[in-house]
Amino acid sequence: MKCTRCRKTAHVSLPSHHSGFCADCYPLFFTKQVETAIRREKMFTHEDRILVALSGGKDSLALMLELKLQGYDVTGLHIDLGIPNSSEKARRKVEDFCTLHGLPLRVFEMAAWGLPIPDVKKYVKRPVCAVCGKMKRHHFNRIAVEEGFDVLATGHNLDDEVARLFANTLRWDTAYLSDQGPVLPASEGFVRKVKPLFRLSEYETANYAFLKGIEIHSDPCPYAGGASFTGHKELWGELEHRSPGQKLQFYQAFLKNGKPAFARQEKETGAVLAPCTECGSPTSAEICSVCRIRAAVAESRAQEG
Amino acid sequence: MKCTRCRKTAHVSLPSHHSGFCADCYPLFFTKQVETAIRREKMFTHEDRILVALSGGKDSLALMLELKLQGYDVTGLHIDLGIPNSSEKARRKVEDFCTLHGLPLRVFEMAAWGLPIPDVKKYVKRPVCAVCGKMKRHHFNRIAVEEGFDVLATGHNLDDEVARLFANTLRWDTAYLSDQGPVLPASEGFVRKVKPLFRLSEYETANYAFLKGIEIHSDPCPYAGGASFTGHKELWGELEHRSPGQKLQFYQAFLKNGKPAFARQEKETGAVLAPCTECGSPTSAEICSVCRIRAAVAESRAQEG
Repeated sequence: MKCTRCRKTAHVSLPSHHSGFCADCYPLFFTKQVETAIRREKMFTHEDRILVALSGGKDSLALMLELKLQGYDVTGLHIDLGIPNSSEKARRKVEDFCTLHGLPLRVFEMAAWGLPIPDVKKYVKRPVCAVCGKMKRHHFNRIAVEEGFDVLATGHNLDDEVARLFANTLRWDTAYLSDQGPVLPASEGFVRKVKPLFRLSEYETANYAFLKGIEIHSDPCPYAGGASFTGHKELWGELEHRSPGQKLQFYQAFLKNGKPAFARQEKETGAVLAPCTECGSPTSAEICSVCRIRAAVAESRAQEG
Repeated sequence: MKCTRCRKTAHVSLPSHHSGFCADCYPLFFTKQVETAIRREKMFTHEDRILVALSGGKDSLALMLELKLQGYDVTGLHIDLGIPNSSEKARRKVEDFCTLHGLPLRVFEMAAWGLPIPDVKKYVKRPVCAVCGKMKRHHFNRIAVEEGFDVLATGHNLDDEVARLFANTLRWDTAYLSDQGPVLPASEGFVRKVKPLFRLSEYETANYAFLKGIEIHSDPCPYAGGASFTGHKELWGELEHRSPGQKLQFYQAFLKNGKPAFARQEKETGAVLAPCTECGSPTSAEICSVCRIRAAVAESRAQEG
């Protein structure tokens, strides 16, 4: 196969785009996809201050580098989860990456805040991945709002988005279906959230990270029973293999036809939010679930002595 | 495994129902599922005259027998497609079945009407299965309306419905999503349509047909490139295997949460129907597509000499 752009030997084959690229031209394809995502979905401009959530994995670091190369005003945010033998490695990759590329970075430590994730695992009965995800989203949003960023960007790729959409669709969960998408507009207490990699598959992002020589944190989290939605991702791998382009079609048709129907319905039945009396974050209860979990863990710890 | 009902050795295992049944008790499970479908979805009563579409396959014959055993007023309708070496066999199975069980039967011949399906294959450029399906639905509805039936029942099972719903969802086809379901209410020119087997899988219906000793027509149609939605059915087999009950959950959650959102949206944008000037069937054009296809084929035949 020859490179679609320069006719040299292709190194990356992309059946869903009816094309293939050599190592030199591939990053240009990647850049174009990110540009298209930002432009079509009106994600942000070069005037906006963008906070990028950095886990240390391929997606978040690829996103950060690409946005920097496109000249955007980006600041990294890493949350140190405090998980032994894991979090320090992830943090080191993020710090080294930002130092190498001269990028500003904030690090938020769950332990310093009083709730390292091992304590969640020990004291909270709910699945640790769900609670950890909730904590991270809470702090991403809180820090973006407090520090006056215009937008929070995350490295979710097409496979993440399709697997999540599929899970929501299997349950026909209209609340989730009404606001899943590459852009979640700002609202009272919430910063705008964007996913500039939503047009790119995991494979496409991994290729970019590899070709750009990004050192990534690729160890699985020791607490995860497997990556989220693994089964759904396998199934979608099969669908995409049978019908290249199916993932992006499914996701884009959802955005065009599905989401508006659910959004209209939810508008009439959605919950009313008010600031949490503890931390000020928007919540449908008096005290938000993040503050309630932190308090419950503190109490469990105190009872233990 | 023991029979959930009588504790004898079970012959049919049903993980999605956390149960299993012996050959004697299994039909009682089947009956209950059909009763539940009819009652919960308010499909019809013992006062209604029901026209049952009979292809000769396991689903339609199982449905016909079960409705008769439940005491409903059923009449069969078979469409003889006029396909050599196939249609006569299917028709014979249907006729023998109705004779054996003392059931009234109408047979409609596509050849006598002027459009045997081989002519569709020969003269119409569109996929023959799509046109054949359209023709059958047209005549099912027309005959039900003309002969004053209250309802048309078809043998679609849960696998058919889930595969179709999945195909519609992959495209987020809101027009189809707004009216897919086990009951399509009557409207101007359209009889009410119901699918009393929608809670039962292909496997469950096949077991019933086998245990009841129904002689079925099981040859694949010589014109079909494979059963419809084969790929989707395999995929859903995998999902159901991983998570028994997933198919019925997906379908029922759609009916409860998904469909209303699409129906509300479509209400504002749906097409206006008027009687076809040729045959009187409701259509959004002046002449319905069935009449147009018949005329086009007649013209092609005439040109050939």
